[in-house]
Amino acid sequence: MDDPQNKRAVVLLSGGLDSATVVALAQAAGYRVAALSIGYGQRHAAELVAARRVAEVAGIERHVITYIDLRAFGGSALTDDIEVPKGRADAEISNGVPVTYVPARNTIFLAHALALAEVEGAANIFIGVNSLDYSGYPDCRPAYIAAFETMANLATKAAVEGATAIKIQTPLAHMTKADIVQAGLAIGVDYGLTFSCYDPPDPEASTLLHCGECDACLLRRKGFREAGVKDPTRYAV
Amino acid sequence: MDDPQNKRAVVLLSGGLDSATVVALAQAAGYRVAALSIGYGQRHAAELVAARRVAEVAGIERHVITYIDLRAFGGSALTDDIEVPKGRADAEISNGVPVTYVPARNTIFLAHALALAEVEGAANIFIGVNSLDYSGYPDCRPAYIAAFETMANLATKAAVEGATAIKIQTPLAHMTKADIVQAGLAIGVDYGLTFSCYDPPDPEASTLLHCGECDACLLRRKGFREAGVKDPTRYAV
Repeated sequence: MDDPQNKRAVVLLSGGLDSATVVALAQAAGYRVAALSIGYGQRHAAELVAARRVAEVAGIERHVITYIDLRAFGGSALTDDIEVPKGRADAEISNGVPVTYVPARNTIFLAHALALAEVEGAANIFIGVNSLDYSGYPDCRPAYIAAFETMANLATKAAVEGATAIKIQTPLAHMTKADIVQAGLAIGVDYGLTFSCYDPPDPEASTLLHCGECDACLLRRKGFREAGVKDPTRYAV
Repeated sequence: MDDPQNKRAVVLLSGGLDSATVVALAQAAGYRVAALSIGYGQRHAAELVAARRVAEVAGIERHVITYIDLRAFGGSALTDDIEVPKGRADAEISNGVPVTYVPARNTIFLAHALALAEVEGAANIFIGVNSLDYSGYPDCRPAYIAAFETMANLATKAAVEGATAIKIQTPLAHMTKADIVQAGLAIGVDYGLTFSCYDPPDPEASTLLHCGECDACLLRRKGFREAGVKDPTRYAV
């Protein structure tokens, strides 16, 4: 390994507000970032358009986009024909596991990130989970992330051969959406390039138009409002 | 859940000798099996042809075939243009991590199985790893499997909602290839339907012709020989 401190990192980049912030935070902390975006048959393919723009503007050298087919499994409003809830109150959003939960999604994403980290010789995997806004998703909780890290260190050739240990880094873990927006703006993140909507009105996606009413849009709006800054997002409603 | 004992299982079915045996063992133990096969840009796509035949003959109701693109990552003879070693001695095969190692492959496969298990309401995931023949693959070892199971039980909605715990079952863990062949024949597995070769000479694959010289073919041949039974495989050499 050419860097004894191993400041190489793989960042899971969905193209949303959170992961764009994570890229910027990792770079600001001196990590050389390879980005990984995963298309998963989701309704919000616009995220991948956003991911490409974010990676380009951030000057990322290696951005891998790969595809998996979670529609074959069923069971989520983000991959199936289940209706995405609109206009819900904060308490509804934060309570219980939402229909937009995708079974084992972060496990599948982190597993791919682990593969890329091994190929890249990266000891760090960054993921933009936060346990406040998304308390309903089991695979965003700190205990889950810690267990994944333990497993990862038994999973790879690098582990067997005694190379650098894998670290799963979650810099947003204890931040609210407003905290995230403020942290990102402080280091120059352009949130106009990012995309969060679960149910985009524009199937072409390249306009990055948001519905404005799904849980993700409501959390996004609230984040900018609570941060006391201008929201650069285009909302349909 | 309609079955308090939860005898539902997801079996990772590659179409190889090992996973075909695992399907039969799970069914013999009373599990209702959903099979999951994953195409991963591997050279041995014939495995998927074999997987379809094995699932059909086993009378499996739900067989999900899904695709991922590990070529995007690089780093393995099974997905890249690295040469598959031929005619190696036993000691070479069992020593160190082979070039046919695919980074984080079992983690990615088990993550998909976890998703399917959640959708199917299955508490059991079967995988045909064994720690003898494949001692060089870190993600076949018992400690790795145990760590994945711990992580899986923190990962899912089922875990959060207190439903049945996920169990990763590895019935072949301590069996040699010969043991596996004998166990499978005793419960009627037709090994002529299965496929193991890393470097199939026939790109069309439907003939299930094996090269006869790669590590997987050598282990397969040795298994039948040591089991003292007729090998139904067609080898090119």
